[in-house]
Amino acid sequence: MALDENKWFTEVHSKDGSAFSLEIKAKLHEEQTPFQTIAIYDTVNWGKLMTIDGFVMLTSRDNFLYHEMMSHPALFTHTDPRRVVIIGGGDCGTLREVLKHDDVEQVWQVDIDERVTRLSEQYFPELCDYNKDVRANLLWDDGLKFIKDTDPGTLDIIIVDSTDPIGPAEGLFNQAFYEDCLKALRRGGLLVQQSESPMYHLGLLKGMHKYMRAAGFADAKTLHFPQPVYPSGWWSSTIACKDNDIQGFRDIDSAAKSFSTCYYNVDMHKAALSQPEFCKDAGLG
Amino acid sequence: MALDENKWFTEVHSKDGSAFSLEIKAKLHEEQTPFQTIAIYDTVNWGKLMTIDGFVMLTSRDNFLYHEMMSHPALFTHTDPRRVVIIGGGDCGTLREVLKHDDVEQVWQVDIDERVTRLSEQYFPELCDYNKDVRANLLWDDGLKFIKDTDPGTLDIIIVDSTDPIGPAEGLFNQAFYEDCLKALRRGGLLVQQSESPMYHLGLLKGMHKYMRAAGFADAKTLHFPQPVYPSGWWSSTIACKDNDIQGFRDIDSAAKSFSTCYYNVDMHKAALSQPEFCKDAGLG
Repeated sequence: MALDENKWFTEVHSKDGSAFSLEIKAKLHEEQTPFQTIAIYDTVNWGKLMTIDGFVMLTSRDNFLYHEMMSHPALFTHTDPRRVVIIGGGDCGTLREVLKHDDVEQVWQVDIDERVTRLSEQYFPELCDYNKDVRANLLWDDGLKFIKDTDPGTLDIIIVDSTDPIGPAEGLFNQAFYEDCLKALRRGGLLVQQSESPMYHLGLLKGMHKYMRAAGFADAKTLHFPQPVYPSGWWSSTIACKDNDIQGFRDIDSAAKSFSTCYYNVDMHKAALSQPEFCKDAGLG
Repeated sequence: MALDENKWFTEVHSKDGSAFSLEIKAKLHEEQTPFQTIAIYDTVNWGKLMTIDGFVMLTSRDNFLYHEMMSHPALFTHTDPRRVVIIGGGDCGTLREVLKHDDVEQVWQVDIDERVTRLSEQYFPELCDYNKDVRANLLWDDGLKFIKDTDPGTLDIIIVDSTDPIGPAEGLFNQAFYEDCLKALRRGGLLVQQSESPMYHLGLLKGMHKYMRAAGFADAKTLHFPQPVYPSGWWSSTIACKDNDIQGFRDIDSAAKSFSTCYYNVDMHKAALSQPEFCKDAGLG
């Protein structure tokens, strides 16, 4: 059957011959910023939907999966996470999760496009709960440049919460950027990056591991989690450590976490680190 | 954008306001059997696609996820799995995985519709590798009746590999059927059933746990895995044990398995048993 395009938002994943659609009640907003086209829809079952350049960024209903898994595994892997940078992440959902950790002293969220945040404040206010936290620094700048200009050895965690590796975010998936991240990190520092679908983008994932190691990172691990509104419904993040093998995480602290989550817990952290056979074969280990 | 319905097969998940589409080259076959309408498509990126009554059953590309996770966790949980029944499963993919286990002596695959198997032999021949195995018994019958008529205490594992709990498969998701399963199982026997999407069908999952326990099963555990072509891309199976708590599995045997898999391994088995926070809250634990 064909979907009525007035009632459905559809994202086509052309390389993989699949498409995902959400039923919409109305388009609430659309604007062309200096960087991209942002649209907000009211959906029938997913709350609000934000798209950028026609790609699904997040919905009210399922963003908890991505935001929790982009933050808590890295925060509970680092032994003493105080200074965190989020590259992208303009919707502030990752920032919120990071700031649930009391040991974090400062977070810089560096998104190129202030409008993403302003629209998130309007349509996803629950994600912006921590925007006025004294530890939060919201900056509108080029993330690549920000990391390059950071004083060496001053950050504990860099979270790359970007769009797909085409267009503006392309420069965030290569060896030169990873070298800049490595330099900006302190001893024990972690880089965590959204790393697309293990089902659709295994080549990209293998490339990320290769370039992270080539840049000098000592180890990298990919974590798996569901994300219904992203291509294939199966998503991943990849954590690289500056100077140590990633052996486990602070599981006692994770099990005793002082904040609530909807998906993440100590068991799901362990589970996410497990590799399916075809991922082991691809060296994601 | 609207998809050209001549080039895309679309399944709408109306209760959840989402839809999933696969790009097709051609419809290869369609027939109305006494039970249902079966169609086979050639897709652009997913190999062959089988649909029943307009719902995606399987594709060549990703069926390994479902078939491996419907079989190996149960086979490696039972201490001595010899006699196995598969209710549904006419495509023979689950049968193939079960028969990779050398300790299995007899398998009865009981599907109501022989045409599913005949079309699978034609379009998914790789799933039918074990159909001529001396241990395989392919029957075309009502699974409910088959279980009711089974001699009590004679089966080790019952795998319910059915369509959704609407239409023909509805009777496979209630307490009366679970009571019949319990009776047919030997000591230590397991019932494993596909249990839909934790994201879309949490109420159904809670109901299954409740009815399994009400029927007399001692314990039930839900396992999670990705399945891109099913609603939400996040799927589950639920294993119930007749008379014991499900405490772990034969992990040493799993780690030393003599056959190859694409997704399943000892780590993914452990991972699949982990419950996200919202599932723990729902009592799936």
